[in-house]
Amino acid sequence: MRATVMHGAGDVRIENVPDAQLVEPTDALVTDTHAAICGSDLWPYRSMAHSETGRRIGHEFIGVVEAAGDEVRTVKPGDLVVTPFLWSDGTCVFCREGLHTSCLHGGRYGDEGVDGGQGEAVRVPQADGTLVVLPVGKDDALMPSLLALSDVMATGHHAALSGRVGPGKTVAVVGDGAVGLCGVIAARRLGAERIFILGRHAARTALAQEFGATDVVGERGDEAVERVRELTDGLGVHSALECVGYKESTRTALGVVRPGGAVGRVGVPQYEAMPMVTQTFFGNVTVAGGPAPARAYIEELLPEVLEGRIEPGRVFDRVASLDEVPDAYRAMDSREALKVLVEPGSA
Amino acid sequence: MRATVMHGAGDVRIENVPDAQLVEPTDALVTDTHAAICGSDLWPYRSMAHSETGRRIGHEFIGVVEAAGDEVRTVKPGDLVVTPFLWSDGTCVFCREGLHTSCLHGGRYGDEGVDGGQGEAVRVPQADGTLVVLPVGKDDALMPSLLALSDVMATGHHAALSGRVGPGKTVAVVGDGAVGLCGVIAARRLGAERIFILGRHAARTALAQEFGATDVVGERGDEAVERVRELTDGLGVHSALECVGYKESTRTALGVVRPGGAVGRVGVPQYEAMPMVTQTFFGNVTVAGGPAPARAYIEELLPEVLEGRIEPGRVFDRVASLDEVPDAYRAMDSREALKVLVEPGSA
Repeated sequence: MRATVMHGAGDVRIENVPDAQLVEPTDALVTDTHAAICGSDLWPYRSMAHSETGRRIGHEFIGVVEAAGDEVRTVKPGDLVVTPFLWSDGTCVFCREGLHTSCLHGGRYGDEGVDGGQGEAVRVPQADGTLVVLPVGKDDALMPSLLALSDVMATGHHAALSGRVGPGKTVAVVGDGAVGLCGVIAARRLGAERIFILGRHAARTALAQEFGATDVVGERGDEAVERVRELTDGLGVHSALECVGYKESTRTALGVVRPGGAVGRVGVPQYEAMPMVTQTFFGNVTVAGGPAPARAYIEELLPEVLEGRIEPGRVFDRVASLDEVPDAYRAMDSREALKVLVEPGSA
Repeated sequence: MRATVMHGAGDVRIENVPDAQLVEPTDALVTDTHAAICGSDLWPYRSMAHSETGRRIGHEFIGVVEAAGDEVRTVKPGDLVVTPFLWSDGTCVFCREGLHTSCLHGGRYGDEGVDGGQGEAVRVPQADGTLVVLPVGKDDALMPSLLALSDVMATGHHAALSGRVGPGKTVAVVGDGAVGLCGVIAARRLGAERIFILGRHAARTALAQEFGATDVVGERGDEAVERVRELTDGLGVHSALECVGYKESTRTALGVVRPGGAVGRVGVPQYEAMPMVTQTFFGNVTVAGGPAPARAYIEELLPEVLEGRIEPGRVFDRVASLDEVPDAYRAMDSREALKVLVEPGSA
């Protein structure tokens, strides 16, 4: 079968790889109908050391179950399913607490022995604990929004929950990428009264406004902090959603939050140590977040997508065939494309 | 009047200073009956640059109101009162939210123009928002426990709340100082099932056990982390209370907490940047805390002290007159004394 293999920074190839197949009795074999490229896939795209064998990549997909192992109970051949970006058993102590990202028997797509999501098919370990059956057909117009549940919408939701967004709260979303935009959707959905989107890409901040952002802050760094403070009577926001992962964006998130407020961090940290320890201490600022337990959130958010109340699929602004994936990485890395939906079955 | 003045590291003196007096109509003048030396007073005791004029110090006291400004409504001459370690107006947006430590019109004892608490008397700004009247006489046997509400018990409680301690939870308290011991009291009171005290001072860990600690961990650093993990089936604790403030103790607190858990930090940070950013990110560990809004907690905890349900005053293991304060600093700094209660009126 054909799949995406990353060989190093800027070096993404579509290659023939061994066909995905069942290995464990708890596996399902899924043929991808829709996949996506994630902002977090861009970190290795920018920094990965050259590798002759390369590594499989991609962790967001929807597909049709082709086969299921003997112990699989909740999905069957023919089901259309969506995956969270990590697989998990659904039964360990952390899964039972809703923290599937820390599953004792879970793991990542693309790791040794497990397919990446950006290919024709995927062996899904722990299928019962991982996959969620979708009650629609694969050509449904909702596919982009359903695919967004795999990661970015769940991650935006996690940022908002971790940042303790609630009714009447003032929120700053740091970053106008797909996760930041989904953070706006989540903040609005949780009742935030005022939502600042911090970004300077006009098309993205415009979409943020359609999603519910009330103010666009185009400044960066200290100037962004100053601007948000001006707009909040000098107090700062109750909740800051860090949706980038750089030290500078983290400084911004920590800087705009008011005393007693919270930063929900979901951008994978590209830095070693958290700055502003003293300022956040004396302000009693809470820092929370991490990888989103998407498996827990899919069930909560799925009805909202099906009923059209949220439309996270609008973050996809380009569709690519598998052959077009390398160029899609380039386009996302240069911010030419916001987020690319991949159709592995198309020519 | 006589008061404690710190002139530099290791240089604490009792000096004649101008009498405390009313300045603002919102002030109260309080004669100290009981004061205390705080672990946080030891930071300048260890590091303060020499100062000819010196600075007033101390922020925990109980006393009798001698006079009150024209606008003071809630305390009157003759009242016995306890102060939280910061003064606050009680009416600003943060005070109304219960975060008196971020009061827009509040401040610290000992700062320019405000008396320190370790002296014969104190001008208390914003008396209505700050002071709490005690329904007992100044010779009541409960005085030490009531004095502990001024800071250490409130701070231990804040660590526990920030660390999200609750019924059935497993808790690690990092530090066997007065705040750590009060953290044990707070964790027990909030229903924790298992409480690890991390410390190696036998008298203190023994007191921690009387307060409700179930396990003593004498190891430090990585070995302490390993030990706590061993004792928790490899998972770590739900809540870690950082009651010291050093980078190493913070690493320990971050290291023992399980995925999805929380660190309540109340030790004033003696370091620049928070370590272990990636580990805490992938574990979805929450870091919260800061200075305790003691004013909010005094009213919650006061009935428990009055009814004898908690006895935080047991952390005081020495009583000193004002003249004995310099030696009391030495004794606390060398860990010879746990916490010293000062009786400014005694010979």
